[in-house]
Amino acid sequence: MNDYNIGDLITVKTENTIYTGTIMPSLDENIIVIKMKNGYNIGISKNKIKSIELIKKGEKPKYKLPPLKIGKKNDLKNISILSTGGTVASRVDYNTGAVHPVFTAGDLIRTIPELLNIANIKGRAILNILSENMTPSYWKMIAEEIKKEIENGADGIVIAHGTDTMHYTAAALSFMVDADIPIVLVGAQRSSDRPSSDAALNLISAVIACTQPIKGVYVVMHGESGDTFCYLHEGVKVRKSHSSRRDAFKSINNIPVAKINPFTKEIEYLRESKKVKGNERNNDKKININTILEEKVALIKIYPGIDGSIINYYVDNGYKGIVIEGTGLGHAPETIFENIKYATDKGVLVAMTTQTINGRINMNVYSNGRELQKLGVIGCEDMLPEVALVKMMYLLGNYDTEKAKELINKNLVGEITEISRFDSY
Amino acid sequence: MNDYNIGDLITVKTENTIYTGTIMPSLDENIIVIKMKNGYNIGISKNKIKSIELIKKGEKPKYKLPPLKIGKKNDLKNISILSTGGTVASRVDYNTGAVHPVFTAGDLIRTIPELLNIANIKGRAILNILSENMTPSYWKMIAEEIKKEIENGADGIVIAHGTDTMHYTAAALSFMVDADIPIVLVGAQRSSDRPSSDAALNLISAVIACTQPIKGVYVVMHGESGDTFCYLHEGVKVRKSHSSRRDAFKSINNIPVAKINPFTKEIEYLRESKKVKGNERNNDKKININTILEEKVALIKIYPGIDGSIINYYVDNGYKGIVIEGTGLGHAPETIFENIKYATDKGVLVAMTTQTINGRINMNVYSNGRELQKLGVIGCEDMLPEVALVKMMYLLGNYDTEKAKELINKNLVGEITEISRFDSY
Repeated sequence: MNDYNIGDLITVKTENTIYTGTIMPSLDENIIVIKMKNGYNIGISKNKIKSIELIKKGEKPKYKLPPLKIGKKNDLKNISILSTGGTVASRVDYNTGAVHPVFTAGDLIRTIPELLNIANIKGRAILNILSENMTPSYWKMIAEEIKKEIENGADGIVIAHGTDTMHYTAAALSFMVDADIPIVLVGAQRSSDRPSSDAALNLISAVIACTQPIKGVYVVMHGESGDTFCYLHEGVKVRKSHSSRRDAFKSINNIPVAKINPFTKEIEYLRESKKVKGNERNNDKKININTILEEKVALIKIYPGIDGSIINYYVDNGYKGIVIEGTGLGHAPETIFENIKYATDKGVLVAMTTQTINGRINMNVYSNGRELQKLGVIGCEDMLPEVALVKMMYLLGNYDTEKAKELINKNLVGEITEISRFDSY
Repeated sequence: MNDYNIGDLITVKTENTIYTGTIMPSLDENIIVIKMKNGYNIGISKNKIKSIELIKKGEKPKYKLPPLKIGKKNDLKNISILSTGGTVASRVDYNTGAVHPVFTAGDLIRTIPELLNIANIKGRAILNILSENMTPSYWKMIAEEIKKEIENGADGIVIAHGTDTMHYTAAALSFMVDADIPIVLVGAQRSSDRPSSDAALNLISAVIACTQPIKGVYVVMHGESGDTFCYLHEGVKVRKSHSSRRDAFKSINNIPVAKINPFTKEIEYLRESKKVKGNERNNDKKININTILEEKVALIKIYPGIDGSIINYYVDNGYKGIVIEGTGLGHAPETIFENIKYATDKGVLVAMTTQTINGRINMNVYSNGRELQKLGVIGCEDMLPEVALVKMMYLLGNYDTEKAKELINKNLVGEITEISRFDSY
C-alpha cells in the first residue's frame, strides 16, 4: 500500500478474485478499500492480497478547501448533528472519489451549505458503526450524548444513523429520553457518492424538523421514491418497510406527523401530535434520561411447526421477558401453550404482537387468544413488535415484573394508539 | 346442559364472570359455546360453570331444509372445496343463531347458491382447526387430499383455510404439489354470521379462479376493504399484512396475478403468470405430490441485542436449517457471526431474508453482508421469510444440504422474481 495513494485506480488480486477500482480512505490500516465501477466499495484484507497493479495515478486535489467560518446567527435555532455512522454520514470528495465519514460541522456544511440558512449547526461523530451492529449499550451512549448536547444549549438534535435498525433506536430513545426539544433520526438509502443519494434532502428535512416547536423522538426520511418531500414519522410508529427504496420508512398504524418540503423549507402537519405543543418552547429545556435497560428480553416470531422449547431455553437462561410476534389478531399454536405457561409460571413477562405488522391485536375474538390470555400473555394493542421489544427492555429495567406487565400495553409515549381508521373489525 | 337447547338465550355464571348469549352447537361435550351480543362466540368449560339461568327459550327451526338436488352440468368445471376450518368455513342458521361448520356441498350451496352457476361443486371437510394451529403434518395431509380429488376428476380445488397461516400453507403446497390445475386457498376475515362477512364473495371468487386455465397454488381474498373485487395472489408471493382488514392479504414484491369480479364473474389478468398456460388444459391432469419435509428448520428474526447462542441451541438440537430474518439488505449483527459460523461449520444450511418484508436481499453492498456470505450464509433474493422457511423444509427433506444450498436461492415455483420495478437500488 505504501506505493499507492487515495484516488489511484488499481487492480487487486486475491487468491480467488480480481478487483479493480479506486483507492478510498480506510479506517483500518490492515484493509484496502476500493470503489468499484458498479459504485460499491469493497474492503480487502491486506494479508489476502497477492498483488496490486497500478492502472492510473489519481489526480491530485486541485485545491485545498478553505477553512470554513461559520458565524452564529442569533435568530436561528442551535441544532446539533450527532453522527453514529451509516450511509447518511458520508461525503464524497469528487477530486479523489473518496468517501469520507462526516465528522465535523464543517464537513457537513461543505456538503450541504443550505443548512446554514436553516439553523446554527454543530456536528460531531459519536459512533461510526453500521446500524446492523447497533446494540442496547450504544442506545445508552446515544442518550447520554443527547443529554450533553441539550445541556450545552441545543434546540434540537439530529441523529445520523444507518437505516437497518434506525426504527429500533428511535423507539429506544423515545422511552429513554424525556426532553422538551425534537430529536430527529435520519438516514439515507443511497450513499452521497451516488447521483441518486437521498442523504442531503433527508438531512435538510431533519434539520427543518428540529427547528419546529415539537418535542419527542422522530424519524425523517424520503416520503416517496422521487426527490420531492420527506415525512416526519413518530419514532415509535415507524418501520423500515423496504430493503432498498428511498421511501423505505413507513408510519405503521398511524399517518406521519408531518410532510417536509426541503426545497421551500415548509412543513405541513398531517395530524395533531401529542408532542406538538403549539409555538411555545420551554426555555428550561428539561432533559431527563433513563438508560437502565433489561437486555434479557427476546423476540420470537411464530410459524407453523415452531418448537416451543425455545421459550424454555430463554427462561432457563435467565430471560425476564419475551415478545411473541404471533399470527393474525395475536395467536400462537396450541402446541406451545405449555412452553408459554412454563415462562409465565416462572414470572417471565410474555407479551403478544402480530407479524401482520399492520393492525391491532385482539385476543378476545378467538379461543386461541382467550387461552393465551389465561396463560398470562398480554396483548400489546397496535404496538409494533420491534417497539414492544424495546419497551419491554425499558420497563423490565425500571420496574418489577408486575408493574411492567401493567404498563406494557398502556400508552406511554405514543407507541399505542386509540382504535381508529387503521383498525377494522 | 341437559335442560337447555341450542338457540336458548341463557346467562352463565362462572367464578369470575357472567356471560349472556345464545347456545351454539359445540364440538366438545364438556364445553358450552354461546354467542354473545357483540357477535363473538365464547366457549366455557362446564366444570367452571357455577349456574345457568334460562332467559328465553330459542325458537324451534320453522322448517327443515329440504335435501338439495345438485344436478351435474356437463359444460361446467368440477370444483372440489376442501375445508380445513377457520372463519370462512362456517355458516349461520338464522333460526337458531347457531354457527355450523360447513361440511358438505349442500351446506355450501345453501349458503351461496350462486356457486351452482359457476361450477359443479363438491365439498367436504378434511380438517376443522384454527389456522394458528396449522402444522407441517397437516400440510402433508392436505396435499394427499388434493391428490385424491384430482384423481377423482376435480378440475380445480378450493381450500377453505383460516387466514392466520394461510400464506404459509399456500407456500408449502406450492412446493409439495405439482398439478396441472389451479389450487386456490381462500379465507375470510369476518365470519358469515356478521353483516360485514367477506366469506361469500371470497368463496365465489375462489371458485371462479378455479375455472380458469391456470395451474399452481394461489390465494384469493378481498382486493380492497369494500365488497367490490378480489385478488388472485400467487401462493409464494403473498402475506397476511393486516390483523383485521378484509383486504389483509397483499402480494409482496410482485403484483397480484388477476382481479376477480365476483358479481360479473369476470377475471382480469394483471400480469403474465408462468402458470397461466393459455386456454389449453391438460386432460391427463398430472398430479404428483412430494410430502417429505424436514421439520428441523427454524426462523430467527434479528434485533439489536439478540443473543446469538439461540443459533447454537438449534444446531445442538439437531436442526438442519435456519432462516434468518435479517435487517435491511440482509444483515445481522457481527456479535452473532461466531454463532452463524458454528452453524455452517456443522453443516447447517443458513439462509438470509429481510424483515423489511418488501424488497430484495443484496449481500454484496455492505461489508456485513459480504462477511456473512463468507460464513456460508445464502441470500434469498426477494423471497419472503415465511416462504424461505417452508422451502427450506421442502429442500432439506428431499436433498442433501449441498443441493439444498444450491437451490434455496434459485426460483423453483415463482417464489423468487427477477429484478423489477419492485427493486430499487
